[in-house]
Amino acid sequence: MENFVYHSPTKILFGNGQINNLAQEILPYGRKVLFVYGEKHIRQHGVYDRIVNLLQDADISWIDFGGVHPNPRMDMVYKGIDLCHEEKIDFILAVGGGSVSDTAKAIAAGAKSDFDIWNAFSDFLRRVPDAEKNIPREALPIGVVITKAGTGSEFDLTSVVTKWEEGTPHEKLLHMNPVFYPRFSICDPTLTYTLSAAQTAYGIADMMTHYFEQYFSQSENTEYLDRMKEGALKTIITCGTRVISYPEDYAARAELMYAALWSCSAQNITGVIPEWTSHFIEHEITALTDLNHGLGMAIIFPAWMKYVIGDHPARFARYASEVWNIPRNGRGDIELGMEGIHKTIEFWSSLGIPTNWSEAGVDPDILPIAAKRALRFGTMGTFKKLEEEDVLHILKSAC
Amino acid sequence: MENFVYHSPTKILFGNGQINNLAQEILPYGRKVLFVYGEKHIRQHGVYDRIVNLLQDADISWIDFGGVHPNPRMDMVYKGIDLCHEEKIDFILAVGGGSVSDTAKAIAAGAKSDFDIWNAFSDFLRRVPDAEKNIPREALPIGVVITKAGTGSEFDLTSVVTKWEEGTPHEKLLHMNPVFYPRFSICDPTLTYTLSAAQTAYGIADMMTHYFEQYFSQSENTEYLDRMKEGALKTIITCGTRVISYPEDYAARAELMYAALWSCSAQNITGVIPEWTSHFIEHEITALTDLNHGLGMAIIFPAWMKYVIGDHPARFARYASEVWNIPRNGRGDIELGMEGIHKTIEFWSSLGIPTNWSEAGVDPDILPIAAKRALRFGTMGTFKKLEEEDVLHILKSAC
Repeated sequence: MENFVYHSPTKILFGNGQINNLAQEILPYGRKVLFVYGEKHIRQHGVYDRIVNLLQDADISWIDFGGVHPNPRMDMVYKGIDLCHEEKIDFILAVGGGSVSDTAKAIAAGAKSDFDIWNAFSDFLRRVPDAEKNIPREALPIGVVITKAGTGSEFDLTSVVTKWEEGTPHEKLLHMNPVFYPRFSICDPTLTYTLSAAQTAYGIADMMTHYFEQYFSQSENTEYLDRMKEGALKTIITCGTRVISYPEDYAARAELMYAALWSCSAQNITGVIPEWTSHFIEHEITALTDLNHGLGMAIIFPAWMKYVIGDHPARFARYASEVWNIPRNGRGDIELGMEGIHKTIEFWSSLGIPTNWSEAGVDPDILPIAAKRALRFGTMGTFKKLEEEDVLHILKSAC
Repeated sequence: MENFVYHSPTKILFGNGQINNLAQEILPYGRKVLFVYGEKHIRQHGVYDRIVNLLQDADISWIDFGGVHPNPRMDMVYKGIDLCHEEKIDFILAVGGGSVSDTAKAIAAGAKSDFDIWNAFSDFLRRVPDAEKNIPREALPIGVVITKAGTGSEFDLTSVVTKWEEGTPHEKLLHMNPVFYPRFSICDPTLTYTLSAAQTAYGIADMMTHYFEQYFSQSENTEYLDRMKEGALKTIITCGTRVISYPEDYAARAELMYAALWSCSAQNITGVIPEWTSHFIEHEITALTDLNHGLGMAIIFPAWMKYVIGDHPARFARYASEVWNIPRNGRGDIELGMEGIHKTIEFWSSLGIPTNWSEAGVDPDILPIAAKRALRFGTMGTFKKLEEEDVLHILKSAC
């Protein structure tokens, strides 16, 4: 087990009806709220009206700030920061999925920083000499009501946003900072009943890859951690199938929401050298195509797995055996591990997720651009070091 | 899954060498420390000297407050509170096991309360009409350096202390309060190398019962949580055997310290109706005998399991099958579950833990007194409701 420092201050209110505690959780921070949301899903299914009623009943005023795009963009972040200043906002409320939460985090830190908050993102992976001056030291308090299970943004310190500028390659970048931890997140599984099958499935792939990124590690002596992640993955597989058939299966929706919550948590990254290479590669694909992130991960991750299996075959054999209960039948680690990878692809396919770029409608011509851009911060990978030609091989193998 | 609220603000510094960060973690809170510890273990094995050097080097002054007894007592708590006032203490540093940490928590809250802090403990399970006035609202900040793996006090909101008065039944009671969360806990597995085999084994039994108390629950649809606990228990079983044979097996010591950390954590109690009945019964035994808590738990828990198995046989069958890999071989849930219980007793016995009151040197005459006292706050149990005769039956079955 690797040494680690863990600190996770977010308060979680989990379960059916917890949304009713929204106002009392906001009030310690003030009465002037920036209400950040996507648009369609929460408007169509009554969540917007419930939130508005809860705020009104508690005499909390809000500035309506809808229209956050999936793969959220900096233009909304800048608008949100301006609103915080103009309206003297006390608190940022994010209602939606990871895009909304990530946008809220960037606005919250931007409103309390005297520099362009984009710099915090653009400097994060680039090792620039004066990066220190572009690290936010504080943020407005944030609360989240999560309506999708997948990203885990409701319980992590990460924000990923895209600078979407016509005529230049869009930049999709992350920043990790403890000031991003929400003060509270409300996780009510019933709010996910109305997600489409595709949104549900992409969230399932996304949360699984969060566990994968910490599971396919070269760290040794991680028995507790391995078993925890294997248990999470088995639960997601069982419950994922259930919610696609019965979207209002509360028990299964709750398991998925719980699994997503912990998938990016401070706990899940303890004790191992983390990966995240597949995530960084995927960010380049979505920056070029605006593809759904979970869908992109479902295509890239198995391609990465097949490429790196030879660097630690026993880990993949364990995955096949523990997560998928595949018997060894006299086979070596690589053969067994490959069956585990194929089971993963089959499972995601069974949820209706495209399994390659062609099915996902991604033009293969962008793959070399994505590979080149993925390497612009230097060599990638902790499980296996990857150069541009490795990344390109991975991407092309998923055509 | 049951609804829950989760909030766990303690920062954890985990791994070999993390003790070197002690001073920088204390300094944000002040420079005048009450240094609380047991005595023998940390004095004999150089931990005391290391702490003192770290404090000196950082120009942090401290009041030495050693001599905390296992099953810690209120007289030390009162002395500590007086010292906090007399010496204008900024911060309480606990170095040792759960007894030291629990003492520090009681002192920290007592120093900031204008009532006798014992009332917070004596009122906690007793439903008294004016209990509100005896709930501490703040506490001095606490930091922990843990030198034993077992209680999980380094990462929870609970303190258990004993009012030890000659001539009256001693009262061992708990109080749970968010003000008890340590600001940080340093978990360095190498500090547990020098524990005796018995101390190590009792800690193993203790942490296992923390998982049991949340696993043997009547709550349904808890797949993620069940798998997490089963994984923890399997890890503890494997690594427990290893550390008894090789006390300096870092990897196994680290797994046990990690498992203990989460065993009483805010996470481990999410999503289920918790039990804790066996813990409450054990507190009465130790109040009467000053027995080691982990040892007491190792005797009571299997007795409780055998008594309640009929109330949810499938749960015990799952335990036998998932934790101990016992094949069903055509047997019913109760028969399979009973084999799981026997495996648990065998395992603890293999670590050198006494398996009944006689081996532990407990006079059977105290059992009726313990049963009577255990019920003084009303009916016990969530998995199965227990009256005095039930508790007495459980206790006597372990003679």
